Amino acid sequence: MAAEETGRVEAFSDGVFAIAMTLLVLDIKVPHELGGGGTLARALAAQWPTYLAFLTSYATILIMWVNHHRLFTHIARWDDRLLFSNGALLLGVVLVPFPTALIAEYLGHAGQTTAAMVYNGTFIVIAFCFNILWKTASREGRLLRVDHDVEATRHITESYRFGPLFYIAAFAVGLVNVTASLVLSLVLAVYFALPSRTAAGIATTRTRS
Amino acid sequence: MAAEETGRVEAFSDGVFAIAMTLLVLDIKVPHELGGGGTLARALAAQWPTYLAFLTSYATILIMWVNHHRLFTHIARWDDRLLFSNGALLLGVVLVPFPTALIAEYLGHAGQTTAAMVYNGTFIVIAFCFNILWKTASREGRLLRVDHDVEATRHITESYRFGPLFYIAAFAVGLVNVTASLVLSLVLAVYFALPSRTAAGIATTRTRS
Amino acid sequence: MAAEETGRVEAFSDGVFAIAMTLLVLDIKVPHELGGGGTLARALAAQWPTYLAFLTSYATILIMWVNHHRLFTHIARWDDRLLFSNGALLLGVVLVPFPTALIAEYLGHAGQTTAAMVYNGTFIVIAFCFNILWKTASREGRLLRVDHDVEATRHITESYRFGPLFYIAAFAVGLVNVTASLVLSLVLAVYFALPSRTAAGIATTRTRS
Amino acid sequence: MAAEETGRVEAFSDGVFAIAMTLLVLDIKVPHELGGGGTLARALAAQWPTYLAFLTSYATILIMWVNHHRLFTHIARWDDRLLFSNGALLLGVVLVPFPTALIAEYLGHAGQTTAAMVYNGTFIVIAFCFNILWKTASREGRLLRVDHDVEATRHITESYRFGPLFYIAAFAVGLVNVTASLVLSLVLAVYFALPSRTAAGIATTRTRS
Repeated sequence: MAAEETGRVEAFSDGVFAIAMTLLVLDIKVPHELGGGGTLARALAAQWPTYLAFLTSYATILIMWVNHHRLFTHIARWDDRLLFSNGALLLGVVLVPFPTALIAEYLGHAGQTTAAMVYNGTFIVIAFCFNILWKTASREGRLLRVDHDVEATRHITESYRFGPLFYIAAFAVGLVNVTASLVLSLVLAVYFALPSRTAAGIATTRTRS
Repeated sequence: MAAEETGRVEAFSDGVFAIAMTLLVLDIKVPHELGGGGTLARALAAQWPTYLAFLTSYATILIMWVNHHRLFTHIARWDDRLLFSNGALLLGVVLVPFPTALIAEYLGHAGQTTAAMVYNGTFIVIAFCFNILWKTASREGRLLRVDHDVEATRHITESYRFGPLFYIAAFAVGLVNVTASLVLSLVLAVYFALPSRTAAGIATTRTRS
Repeated sequence: MAAEETGRVEAFSDGVFAIAMTLLVLDIKVPHELGGGGTLARALAAQWPTYLAFLTSYATILIMWVNHHRLFTHIARWDDRLLFSNGALLLGVVLVPFPTALIAEYLGHAGQTTAAMVYNGTFIVIAFCFNILWKTASREGRLLRVDHDVEATRHITESYRFGPLFYIAAFAVGLVNVTASLVLSLVLAVYFALPSRTAAGIATTRTRS
Repeated sequence: MAAEETGRVEAFSDGVFAIAMTLLVLDIKVPHELGGGGTLARALAAQWPTYLAFLTSYATILIMWVNHHRLFTHIARWDDRLLFSNGALLLGVVLVPFPTALIAEYLGHAGQTTAAMVYNGTFIVIAFCFNILWKTASREGRLLRVDHDVEATRHITESYRFGPLFYIAAFAVGLVNVTASLVLSLVLAVYFALPSRTAAGIATTRTRS
C-alpha cells in the first residue's frame, strides 16, 4: 500500500486538470454566419479574443498541473485536510472554463472590466489554494516523504509566497487595460514554467538513474 | 496482480467522479444580453442560484469521492456484485449535472419544488447506493483486506446508516423552502467532510510512516 | 515493466468508457418552456424517452466496461494489432452518445425506426469489435498471461460468439417496435451483467486471498 | 519511485487524449428539422462531411496516442523541458475538436479551403510537436531508459522526420480539393497505424514473456 499512498489523489487530480483543459476548446465556436461579403478567414480572425483567452487559460492550467505534479513528488501521505485543501484547489481549476468564456465574449465590449475581474480573481483564489495545499502538506514536514529534500521544499515555500502577488498585479492591470492583463497572465504562466536553475536541477536528479 | 486488485475499479470510478464534477461548470452560462441599462456585474449577480447549485453539487460529489476513496482503502477484492453496485452508484454520480441544471434554472420560479425534489431525490438514491456498495464489500468482511481494521469498518457501517436520513431531511425541507434545502445540502457536505476524530485518526495512521 | 504491460491501454480505455458514460447526461435537457398551464413535473415526465435511452446506454456501456475489465484480467501483453482492435472498439463506445440522443429525440415521432436502426446498429458493431479484440488477444493464447485459465478463456470465447446475435435480435425487434427494442437492449445489459455461476466463480477466485 | 517515474505524465496525457477523442462526438448533431417530405435517413446521410471529419480526427488522435504510448516505452525520466514539450503537444490535441467542427460545417460551402487550411495546419503543428518531444527526450539518450533499444529509437527518429511532410502534403492537397485532403489524412492515419515489420517486431518482443 505504501508506494501508492497518494496515487489515487494524484490520479483524480490529473483527471480534473485534464478535463478542465480539454473543455476549454468547447468555447471556441465555429462561426455560423459570415455576413454580407465576409469570408471565413475574416470571421475566424475576428475571434482573436477567444484564442487569447483559450491560450492563457490552457497555459495557466498546464503550469498549475506541473506545479501540482512537483508538489506531489515531495508529498508521501494524505489525510482528510489534504484531501479537502486539494478539493478546494480543484474547485478553482474546474471553474476556469467559465471566466475564460466570459472574458472571450466581453473583451472589447462593455462589461470587459467586470469580466477581467472575475477572470483574474479566479487565478488569485487558485494561487491562494496552492499555498494552503502546500502548507497543509509541508508544515513541520507532516505529510512529506521522510527523505524529502529540505532545500527544495523551502524553495517551493518561498516561491509560492509570491504567486498570489503576481495574479493580484494582473488583476490591477485588468482594471486599466483588459487585453494587457490577459497577456500578462500568459507571460506569468511562461515565467512559472521556467523554474530557477536550482529547482530544475533538483527535478532532474529526481529521476531513475 | 494482487496489489492492484481493485486498482482499475478505483481508476474508472475516479474518472467518472472527476468528469461529473468538471461538467458542472458547463451549466454556468455566460450572460448574453445585458438588457437596457444593465451591467455585466448585475447580470452575473442575478445568476446566484446557478452558483449555489454548482457549489452544492461540487461539494457533494467531492465528499462522495472522498468517501469512495476511504471505502476502498479497506476493500481489497472485487467480484461482479461489487462492480455492479459500484456501477449503480456511479449512475447516480453521472446524473448529478442534470438536477443541478434543473434547480439552477427553476429556483425562484414556478416548478422549484419539483426541481428540489428531483435534486434531493438524486442524493437520497446515491446515499442508498453507498450503503449497498459498502454492504456488498463488507458483509462478513468478504471483500475487505485480510488485515482490515474492524473498529474502523464498524464505524463506517454505523455512520453510513444515517447518510440517507440526512438527505431525506433535506428533501423534506425542500418541500417548504427550496433555497434552505440547498444550503442544508451544502452544510451536509461540509459535515461529512469533517469526520469524527476517531475516523480522522485512523485515516491519518493509514499512511506510509 | 512487466507488471504494468497493459496498464496504459487499460487506463486509456477506462478514460474513454468513463467519459462516454458521463457525456450521456448532456442529452438530458432542462425543459425551458412549460407551455400554458403545464407543470415542470409534467414536462419532465414527457421526456421519458430520454431517460429510457440514457438508462439503456449507460447500462450497456457499463456492461462493456465490465467485460473489457474481465478480458484484460486474462491479457498480459499488447502489440500493435491489439492497440488497433481496441481503438476500433473504443470508436464504437465514443459514438454511443450520438445514437442515444437520436433515439431520445425521435422515439414516438416519424423517423423512429431509422433512429432505432442506428442505435441498435451501433451496438451490433461494438459486439463484433469485442469479438475481434478477444480473438486478437486469445488466438493460440498469444497475448494471454502464461498462467491463464484455459477453461475461463474458452468460456469467454463461447459466450462472445452469441453477443452480436442478441443485438441483431434487438435490431430486428426495432423494425417493428422501437420502444420494445430499447427495453430489450436494457434487459440484455442486465443479462450480460449476470454471468453464469461458473464465470462468477472464476472471477471471484481471481482475487487477493 | 523509480518504476513510475513517468507514470503521472503518461496518465495525464492519456486523460487528455481520451477526452479529446470523446468530445469529438459532440459535433455530430441530431438533425432537428427534417424539412418538407424529408426523412431522417436522408437528413442523416446529408451529414456525411461530419462523419468523415469525425472519423479522420478520431483515427488521427488514436494514432497519436499509439505513438505517444510507443515513445514512452523508451522514455524513463522526465524533466521540466519534457513536461512543457509534452504540454505543447497536448495543446494541439486539445484543439482538434475545433477544426473538426469547422471542416464538418464548411465542407462543400464557401470557406471550405480556409477550414481545410486550419484543419491540416493543426496536424502539421502537432507533427512538429511530436518531433520536439522526441528530440527533448532522446537527444544523447538523456531521458531514455538506460537499456533502451538503440536500433528502435533510431528508427523512431528517422520515421518522425517524415511525419510533418505528409501533413504538409495533405495541406497542399487541401488547397485544391478539400474532401481529397480529408481522405488523405485518414489514409495517413492508417499508414502510421501499420508500422514497418521491424518496429512491430520490436514492439511485440517488448512484452512480458
